[in-house]
Amino acid sequence: MTPELSQLFEFLRFPSISTDSAYSGDVRACAEWLQAKLSGMGLDAQLHETPGHPIVVAKNEHRDGVPTVMIYGHYDVQPVDPVELWDSPPFEPELRDGKIWGRGSTDNKGQMFAHVLGVEKALQQGELPVNLILLFEGEEEIGSKNLPAFLEAHRDELKCDVIAVSDTGMVAPGVPTMGYGLRGITCGEVLIKGPSGDLHSGVYGGSVMNPATAIGRVIASLHDADERVAIDGFYDDVRDLETWEREMWETVPFGEKQYLEETGAPAAVGEAGYSVKERLWARPTAEVNGVGAGYQGEGSKTVIASEAMAKLSFRLVPDQDPDDILRKVEAHVMKHAPEGVTVEFVPGHSGEPYLSDPNSEFGKAAQSALAETFGREPVLIREGGSIPIINTFKSILGADSLMLGLALPGCQIHAPNENFHVANFEAGIELNQLLLKKLAACSAK
Amino acid sequence: MTPELSQLFEFLRFPSISTDSAYSGDVRACAEWLQAKLSGMGLDAQLHETPGHPIVVAKNEHRDGVPTVMIYGHYDVQPVDPVELWDSPPFEPELRDGKIWGRGSTDNKGQMFAHVLGVEKALQQGELPVNLILLFEGEEEIGSKNLPAFLEAHRDELKCDVIAVSDTGMVAPGVPTMGYGLRGITCGEVLIKGPSGDLHSGVYGGSVMNPATAIGRVIASLHDADERVAIDGFYDDVRDLETWEREMWETVPFGEKQYLEETGAPAAVGEAGYSVKERLWARPTAEVNGVGAGYQGEGSKTVIASEAMAKLSFRLVPDQDPDDILRKVEAHVMKHAPEGVTVEFVPGHSGEPYLSDPNSEFGKAAQSALAETFGREPVLIREGGSIPIINTFKSILGADSLMLGLALPGCQIHAPNENFHVANFEAGIELNQLLLKKLAACSAK
Repeated sequence: MTPELSQLFEFLRFPSISTDSAYSGDVRACAEWLQAKLSGMGLDAQLHETPGHPIVVAKNEHRDGVPTVMIYGHYDVQPVDPVELWDSPPFEPELRDGKIWGRGSTDNKGQMFAHVLGVEKALQQGELPVNLILLFEGEEEIGSKNLPAFLEAHRDELKCDVIAVSDTGMVAPGVPTMGYGLRGITCGEVLIKGPSGDLHSGVYGGSVMNPATAIGRVIASLHDADERVAIDGFYDDVRDLETWEREMWETVPFGEKQYLEETGAPAAVGEAGYSVKERLWARPTAEVNGVGAGYQGEGSKTVIASEAMAKLSFRLVPDQDPDDILRKVEAHVMKHAPEGVTVEFVPGHSGEPYLSDPNSEFGKAAQSALAETFGREPVLIREGGSIPIINTFKSILGADSLMLGLALPGCQIHAPNENFHVANFEAGIELNQLLLKKLAACSAK
Repeated sequence: MTPELSQLFEFLRFPSISTDSAYSGDVRACAEWLQAKLSGMGLDAQLHETPGHPIVVAKNEHRDGVPTVMIYGHYDVQPVDPVELWDSPPFEPELRDGKIWGRGSTDNKGQMFAHVLGVEKALQQGELPVNLILLFEGEEEIGSKNLPAFLEAHRDELKCDVIAVSDTGMVAPGVPTMGYGLRGITCGEVLIKGPSGDLHSGVYGGSVMNPATAIGRVIASLHDADERVAIDGFYDDVRDLETWEREMWETVPFGEKQYLEETGAPAAVGEAGYSVKERLWARPTAEVNGVGAGYQGEGSKTVIASEAMAKLSFRLVPDQDPDDILRKVEAHVMKHAPEGVTVEFVPGHSGEPYLSDPNSEFGKAAQSALAETFGREPVLIREGGSIPIINTFKSILGADSLMLGLALPGCQIHAPNENFHVANFEAGIELNQLLLKKLAACSAK
């Protein structure tokens, strides 16, 4: 085993499960280990207390005239249940079949530690070519709840020109992938009330609007026959895909076949006129995350429920505004709920969509580092999900994020048998060194 | 307290809860008490074992040339939970405000015992004017599961010309009510499957048919803009309301105002062109008794569920055939489920609609007994619910049932503080005597 892998294994052995207070001591021990590692490399590494788990920040000595680069990652991990489905213990990492098996191997310890080791190698060769800020939090898996306040409080020390994040995926093995966009989100719950209590569907059925029927109608009203979202004004501010994006994405080795394999869905269904990739990465959606009313147990119960609910979420793309969309959703729900019930719409959380220019000076530098590391030009994609912290970085620190994900399909993040390809771990170390070199050649702001 | 009330109170004190095996001994004790009471009246009273609770049958000595009348009732009762909501203990009956308070006071001990006491009074005056069969079961509240086999096995001894059942309601206090029809029912469950597991709605949302959306569309497809059931052929065999029925029902002191008070619904909504009463009693329905998919807990979870389900039931009217309707429902569901999911339809239980002629010779006799008892002409109604045993009587014994309900709005059957008006109890005793007299004048088959 290489010394790099042994160190990663040491890091992986901490059960730094952030959501479970039984592991608080392990999370802290992991942060302290990380701080010690970074100090040992010659960086100024600090462990910052928060109301939750610590944040570790490490910097080299900054100087004028070179760009300031932040590398963000997280040392906390997901729980391991159901632990009986693991082929080897989640916190006793193993090498098998060219992969590192263990909780956190991909998400995110393996990816972030590749950056740490890249920096270490660069430091062994002399001064770093950039002003570096390493920012590692211990609460990403529980919503990064203390990070925004920390960024606000340390806005000046954390000022940077660009941020690199390796916490996303590659579209396929060997295909370097840079993400430059994320969908936003807004959520809300529809609550429908009909009769004051549950009714016997025989004695009373036929002259009362059934809340379960009403919620079905509201759900059915969300899309038109082309599977477009049928809410008035929903697409008003949607920015069209650029021609270069549609052309680029056609070359990305991911499509309907892989999507159907991954999801197990019988068919790919979505907005007419767009490919699977375009629908996932650049088009907004309306989804029902939950619906419930009446009797859901075994057998039958001839009841008309007094209430029904549906949880809705909407993935947003530039330049949709979550608050504006939420108002339009509410108006739509009120308009489409049938007569004979009362309707309440309870807004939920929101997050802005994110889009940066992958061909900015920094973006080009990152593309070049990826190309050199993997021996082929990277594909440029957006992500269908939302990573709220990227928007927070943008709004508080003013810097864009380069998403240089190293996860592969099948890496089982958040699931049993999480794994990380050794080849990607090693590529990550190289990528970091090249990235810092290429970014150093860009203009500092 | 009258001797009649004391005896009823004795009957009510048995906690004859059929669904809870902890009370099996009490159910049996109640049946034995009833058998002893009927034997003491001079009837041939037998307690018949079943795989469940006993059936009590009592007969006078039958003779040729007079009609054979069966009176059906049940001595089992519903559970009493939540017992803390009762103003007086459910099995310690009390008289307050002109009402008898206790579990079973209306449903069905009070009503059936009025018949018993009516028969007792008639016997005290001499021979009964009819051949009488009293049939009292102990499993009505758990679906009368052993009664059909018992009827089959004793078909000859139970042969009768007409059946009287007091287990329904009066539309308003002082308004004698005869029911001559019941809606039938058929049920089924729609199971929708999409992706093989729950999906992240950000990463995967937009190109997969969401099962929760699909179930909403199926539900929304059940009705048209006039709130008619939109299933092809659903109304093909629906028998139109007779002119006399529509005219009669206009005089029934029950309508939208009372319906809204009882249900607490914001508005009466139903099939265009029909009144509330017509919709409840003589028009078929499609109801969603339950719907469920995805996350239904607090807050939000951005998931696309792999499955969704809806439990549907359909109230049927003559001459709809439950099997035929079930086939049409299944075809409709298959046709209206969107592309991108698989659909399964699981048929549930069924029951035929029931309709008899209220103006038959026996019907006229019952109307006359009701009119004389209450001092006004009875209203003739149908019931929105289903009473499967009435169809079973018809199919096995070949006899129609006269539904001479004595329950009043507010009697709280199946709920805490069940009560029965003393006036209705006393009216029931009188009604029985008049009924037997009037039926005696009808032709025996």
